Amino acid sequence: MNGLHILAELYDCTRDCASTARCMTDVTVLAQLCRSACAKAGLTPVAEAFHQFKNPDGSSGGVTGAIVLAESHLAIHTWPELNAVTLDLYVCNFSQDNRNAAESAFSALIQAFDPQRLERREILRGLTPAS
Amino acid sequence: MNGLHILAELYDCTRDCASTARCMTDVTVLAQLCRSACAKAGLTPVAEAFHQFKNPDGSSGGVTGAIVLAESHLAIHTWPELNAVTLDLYVCNFSQDNRNAAESAFSALIQAFDPQRLERREILRGLTPAS
Repeated sequence: MNGLHILAELYDCTRDCASTARCMTDVTVLAQLCRSACAKAGLTPVAEAFHQFKNPDGSSGGVTGAIVLAESHLAIHTWPELNAVTLDLYVCNFSQDNRNAAESAFSALIQAFDPQRLERREILRGLTPAS
Repeated sequence: MNGLHILAELYDCTRDCASTARCMTDVTVLAQLCRSACAKAGLTPVAEAFHQFKNPDGSSGGVTGAIVLAESHLAIHTWPELNAVTLDLYVCNFSQDNRNAAESAFSALIQAFDPQRLERREILRGLTPAS
């Protein structure tokens, strides 16, 4: 269960980029982006759950979702009205050190949203062995 | 997007409790526990993904899953071989302060596993407004 959890807040995502806008508001596009980032990084999705929010006028709002991994999970929430995203990527090192895989998937997601400002925190989890 | 993220590692979960054992190794039981904890706390599930791991001999291993919430997400991974669990609960305060709801759901999950040792960290996220 020991592993790396990256928590990030992405601000000022590129406003004029059509692909960023679609990732923010289209559940199909965001889910595919997340799947692709995990696959290219060599992570192992085992289940997923995504949801499209709607604005009061019926237009597409934010998207929220999670991919459950054999290595732990990815969770993402978009806030198009704030031009911001929150991202979690937690990878356990059960059979191997997955830090490089986590960094690879993280980079792919950051690249897609192109935030002008990024707050990133790392938490090392489960380092205290169970007695 | 501002909100509270609770990250916890649960160690030495009650070994002799049948209900704890079932939460550790039965995806149906764990998913129901998570749904119930969210519902009683007044949180709003919008999608979910759970997965049952199998041991090499075909018996049930750990369980992993996430509930995507209107308020953000819950993610949980059980490690029956270590008698341990990792738990994430992230609630945003978009329309109201959801700290009490988060604490309520967290307590219900802790109670189910009855860990003899708990490492809990809180991260306040998204407090820096987007420019």
